[in-house]
Amino acid sequence: MIKKYVSGTPINTDAIINQKKYENHSLASLSYFNFSTNKDTLTLSYPLSKEDAIYGLGEANRGINKRGYRYSSFCSDDPNHTEEKESLYGAHNFIIVDGLKTFGVFVDCPSKVEFDIGYTEYDKLTISCVSDVAIYIINGNSCLDIVSQFREIIGQSYIPPRWAFGYQQCRWSYMSAEEIRNVVKKHREINIPLDAVYMDIDYMERYKDFTINNDTFPDFENFVKEMQSSNIHLVPIIDAGVKIEEGYDIYEEGVKDNHFCKDAQGNDFVAAVWPGYTHFPDFLNSTTRKWFGHKYKFLIDKGIDGFWNDMNEPAIFHSANGIENAINLLRDIDTKRITPYEEDEVEKLFKLKDALGNLSNQTSDYESFYHNMDGKTIRHDKVHNLYGYNMTRAAGEAFDEIEPNKRLLLFSRSSYIGMHRYGGIWTGDNHSWWSHILLSIKMMPSLNMCGFMYVGSDIGGFGCNTSRDLLLRWLAFGIFTPLMRNHSALGTRQQEVYQFENTEEFKNVIDIRYSLIPYLYSEYVKSALNNSMYFRPLAFDYPEDEIARDVEDQLMLGEGLMITPVYTQNAKRRYVYLPEDMLYIRFKGYDKKEVKVLEKGHHSIDVALDEVPLFVKKNHILLLTKPEMSTADLNYDKFDLYCYNPDTSSVTYKLFNDDGYSKDYMNPENFNTLQIEKKDGNIEIKAATPVHLNMNIYE
Amino acid sequence: MIKKYVSGTPINTDAIINQKKYENHSLASLSYFNFSTNKDTLTLSYPLSKEDAIYGLGEANRGINKRGYRYSSFCSDDPNHTEEKESLYGAHNFIIVDGLKTFGVFVDCPSKVEFDIGYTEYDKLTISCVSDVAIYIINGNSCLDIVSQFREIIGQSYIPPRWAFGYQQCRWSYMSAEEIRNVVKKHREINIPLDAVYMDIDYMERYKDFTINNDTFPDFENFVKEMQSSNIHLVPIIDAGVKIEEGYDIYEEGVKDNHFCKDAQGNDFVAAVWPGYTHFPDFLNSTTRKWFGHKYKFLIDKGIDGFWNDMNEPAIFHSANGIENAINLLRDIDTKRITPYEEDEVEKLFKLKDALGNLSNQTSDYESFYHNMDGKTIRHDKVHNLYGYNMTRAAGEAFDEIEPNKRLLLFSRSSYIGMHRYGGIWTGDNHSWWSHILLSIKMMPSLNMCGFMYVGSDIGGFGCNTSRDLLLRWLAFGIFTPLMRNHSALGTRQQEVYQFENTEEFKNVIDIRYSLIPYLYSEYVKSALNNSMYFRPLAFDYPEDEIARDVEDQLMLGEGLMITPVYTQNAKRRYVYLPEDMLYIRFKGYDKKEVKVLEKGHHSIDVALDEVPLFVKKNHILLLTKPEMSTADLNYDKFDLYCYNPDTSSVTYKLFNDDGYSKDYMNPENFNTLQIEKKDGNIEIKAATPVHLNMNIYE
Repeated sequence: MIKKYVSGTPINTDAIINQKKYENHSLASLSYFNFSTNKDTLTLSYPLSKEDAIYGLGEANRGINKRGYRYSSFCSDDPNHTEEKESLYGAHNFIIVDGLKTFGVFVDCPSKVEFDIGYTEYDKLTISCVSDVAIYIINGNSCLDIVSQFREIIGQSYIPPRWAFGYQQCRWSYMSAEEIRNVVKKHREINIPLDAVYMDIDYMERYKDFTINNDTFPDFENFVKEMQSSNIHLVPIIDAGVKIEEGYDIYEEGVKDNHFCKDAQGNDFVAAVWPGYTHFPDFLNSTTRKWFGHKYKFLIDKGIDGFWNDMNEPAIFHSANGIENAINLLRDIDTKRITPYEEDEVEKLFKLKDALGNLSNQTSDYESFYHNMDGKTIRHDKVHNLYGYNMTRAAGEAFDEIEPNKRLLLFSRSSYIGMHRYGGIWTGDNHSWWSHILLSIKMMPSLNMCGFMYVGSDIGGFGCNTSRDLLLRWLAFGIFTPLMRNHSALGTRQQEVYQFENTEEFKNVIDIRYSLIPYLYSEYVKSALNNSMYFRPLAFDYPEDEIARDVEDQLMLGEGLMITPVYTQNAKRRYVYLPEDMLYIRFKGYDKKEVKVLEKGHHSIDVALDEVPLFVKKNHILLLTKPEMSTADLNYDKFDLYCYNPDTSSVTYKLFNDDGYSKDYMNPENFNTLQIEKKDGNIEIKAATPVHLNMNIYE
Repeated sequence: MIKKYVSGTPINTDAIINQKKYENHSLASLSYFNFSTNKDTLTLSYPLSKEDAIYGLGEANRGINKRGYRYSSFCSDDPNHTEEKESLYGAHNFIIVDGLKTFGVFVDCPSKVEFDIGYTEYDKLTISCVSDVAIYIINGNSCLDIVSQFREIIGQSYIPPRWAFGYQQCRWSYMSAEEIRNVVKKHREINIPLDAVYMDIDYMERYKDFTINNDTFPDFENFVKEMQSSNIHLVPIIDAGVKIEEGYDIYEEGVKDNHFCKDAQGNDFVAAVWPGYTHFPDFLNSTTRKWFGHKYKFLIDKGIDGFWNDMNEPAIFHSANGIENAINLLRDIDTKRITPYEEDEVEKLFKLKDALGNLSNQTSDYESFYHNMDGKTIRHDKVHNLYGYNMTRAAGEAFDEIEPNKRLLLFSRSSYIGMHRYGGIWTGDNHSWWSHILLSIKMMPSLNMCGFMYVGSDIGGFGCNTSRDLLLRWLAFGIFTPLMRNHSALGTRQQEVYQFENTEEFKNVIDIRYSLIPYLYSEYVKSALNNSMYFRPLAFDYPEDEIARDVEDQLMLGEGLMITPVYTQNAKRRYVYLPEDMLYIRFKGYDKKEVKVLEKGHHSIDVALDEVPLFVKKNHILLLTKPEMSTADLNYDKFDLYCYNPDTSSVTYKLFNDDGYSKDYMNPENFNTLQIEKKDGNIEIKAATPVHLNMNIYE
């Protein structure tokens, strides 16, 4: 049961579909929360009981249970995801309070929303935002039920093409077609499967969107074809800012047709990002969305079928105004420093460092430009969290027109709930830190709660230097995330798997991904179609189990799996909690596995660097196929079937598969029901459509 | 068995006592390692087998087992201890390779030493340093034996006064005597024990060493007495740099008597730190050490009996030369920016940010000043790691003359092995991050290996905002570290325990510390006297136990204890591995505990926010006293005795206690042997000196 409460005149975010379905109630009747308004700020507060856990917030820092810290929904380009950070790239204002009472809250607000979840006071939850806001309260009989109701009202999650479940390789940047050819060759040489290679900002001509550097990527169309013939998809980056440069068509059209955000004087707003000074397309305007979205056709026409949208918080390196302060501070030090040992120079230098350090993504810049929201002028900071969302919506809506019958890969850095209908996200510029494997594990179910299903972190870590063991352990988690991409930054250690010794260990891990793809793809699509969660906290599946409720380093996956990644250096084993008896598969590569039933309770399991532990729930089916060099080569109707079926219950599995790119998901031909029946000591298997099954049933 | 190998003409660091005992062998006969020299660099390499673990490096980042990363011994003032950092404040070049072969290595080298421990290649350890170096190889029959041999040659570790085991409160800064009085009052009001309050940089007159701000700390001597009457010790900070200011005695004496480091032109070297421009005392010169050390008398004469030395890497905010580059870069941007949208401004601004970001602690500054090492001129970078060490040595040596019969508290930020004889260290400017509880746990045994016994981290975290639960969990670990200090930075949330709700929960935890003090103090002093480790990895106590060898979040403490701190937010329990049957004490405050025997193996134990789990090894004795408001109030001869003694073996414990400040450690009166004997079903207790014992024997 969902009830909508409205205060003032909220800006429409299009997060909720069929909004008219919901009657507007006044805050006076708001359940659970006390509220107060002070000037234009609304504050909701809720008393937390000792047992309350708070889930949600999508792409946010810290735990699965968000209690004990504060979070600020304000899309931020901040690559240093240390524990104290309150904002990351997304703004996902959906939480579930689970404990004494259990309910969901969605704060549909495009400007900053602050959540103090037992931080200032341990037993108090407060939410603060502007007073023009819509709040949805969702009652249900469990966390899973509440998520499902919420997902229904925000609309079906994006489903990528099947190849996007393959292993993908990125680096900022592969500088030329030749370099990319070599990346592919090196993977193929050592038999590591690969489906995609990314083109980061350097494929463009001086960072101009929808251009290609013809010197380094000559005859681009043929290069795309060449890659396709090896089952490799090329995925270019598109940045939000449009370079100011006379003669550059996108810039000139944008100026002419008023597609750019304006400053207070009505001029096109100027800010510096990678291309130098740029204008920002006004993605909050439907005409501009259409204009910009159709620009992707330039690359689609050359055979490109996947994109990642970046820098769309929007990130601002500095504005012309922003450096004025820094310059003045330095002039002051500069002119006075002829006096030796000046008393206050230390203090001044700290101020200058701060000024320069804070040049980027300044609040004052976000307050200095304006959108034309289909006729209504709105200052950017009031709708900040919608910017990346609508850039990706622009692309997604255009793709539906350009390629009505084909799914393209699309994901974004910045996002707001609603964007999940158009694309996925990656979790931004993380680091080669062990703690970031764990952070990424914890983020996954929260993202699923908010509709973001096609998700993954930069495997191996984007910033800093990776190590061989870190990459192996990260991959062993990454084989379960829908987006499985190895990505690293300029200036860091090269981290393609072939850069390290004993690549057969990497193959052991990545092969398991390919072996799992039919099952993971099936689970993904069904989760998207059914508004269910691909990744779940144990707390959601076992709400009565006090121990399971606190587990934050294991995840439920799809209908039948539990994963337990290793995320500590030099660990040769890890502690695992089993909320019930499960089938334990210890993968030592695809061909070599140890399988046994483990009992409910506390376990320590050995996990060598190239091994992957996987648990299958009782009376659930896991299907594995033979790994190949790409998703296109996989066999989707010949499986090893694993099932722990200790009693006489019949077990069924509904397998989804399709051609991998069309949009006719609900076609009954895409679903095949497998059924295991036990009768008089015999095991019988039925399949609606015949498949080859190699049975492994444990009793 | 220890063998010394010498290459070239090493600089004497005084890390090893009785150096003449060791014959100099040439590198040609070096065991275990291959070596090569390239110009002035010596590289040692050792092939790592799969099972090799590498312990040591004292105050270093990451794991107890250092394998899989690289470390650079170069004392660094870097407050952001994220996972990729290779240098912290100390330089402790002692490691043990434990696996196929087991041996210790000490690289006695005062300049940068680099350890690549299976990072570049997973199966290779390399150590690089200047080619003028002394290397000690230590063979022994176990890690503990090797540590003990190493500790013997570096000399007895510093022993602080007993009050330094009390709870201590710090903040940058309590700005006045009045503020400190209030801190004490607030602790006393809620019955939280407290033994010391710190005075950070603002107690001085404009950051000048050995001055007191008479406006904010009027009648200082009487203030010290007033605090002492409440059993509160005041601990002022002393920074390395001496402010350049005419009329300031320390500055003028230093200039006159040539006590400061020189630049290339022979002038006193100038660098900016807190006081603005300063000179650095040349602590590597014995005359200067004596001069500076005796300056502490100014405060000792006022009743002060504890100090912390800071900024002694030395930290440099900037040198006069250092800002030249930044200024030029900014002038360039400034003059050219009249051209709108200049192509390369983005790149230039990144350069400028880098230049300003790197102004501090620049290599070029460390290469631009000189020491007079008792007659020999040496460039600073070649002896960099000795600077903080010798500042603290200056104080320690002076204290022996100023107070020959009384131990003072002394610890330092920067250090090198050898300094452990003069004082302790704290682990520097950490953050209010959960991961920093764990980092601190992991550092403790490594520090003990290198002789640093009086150690602890800033409880609650120095930088960033703490939370109530973080502070509680950190305290629950901190009650076991010899230095137990709550410390936070300017501008962060106030984190004295009385700033939070339900302070009885804080009392529950801190009371346990006071209850443990007689035992912890006894264990500490014995470890220092016997060259043994107060904190040990489980790997050292249970080398044959494959699982224990990998445990990095539990520590052995003293003869008989194992600790298992909680370091994850919202966790209500944790996994614990028991390498043998142990007595488990679940403290819910001092008065309320649950005690039972737990079996060897895997356990999950419940740990509420105000609880402390503690394990006592079989046939070992734990003594607890009744907590009081200060160490001075504690009863040191009336104990609750806990022992798990399932068989008929006799159990003995040698209890150390003294007056708490004198140096006559070995006086037999300081030792009392308690003995539990079982005969014919009866339990008998003997004590060399009578003590009151409340027996809790578990069979």
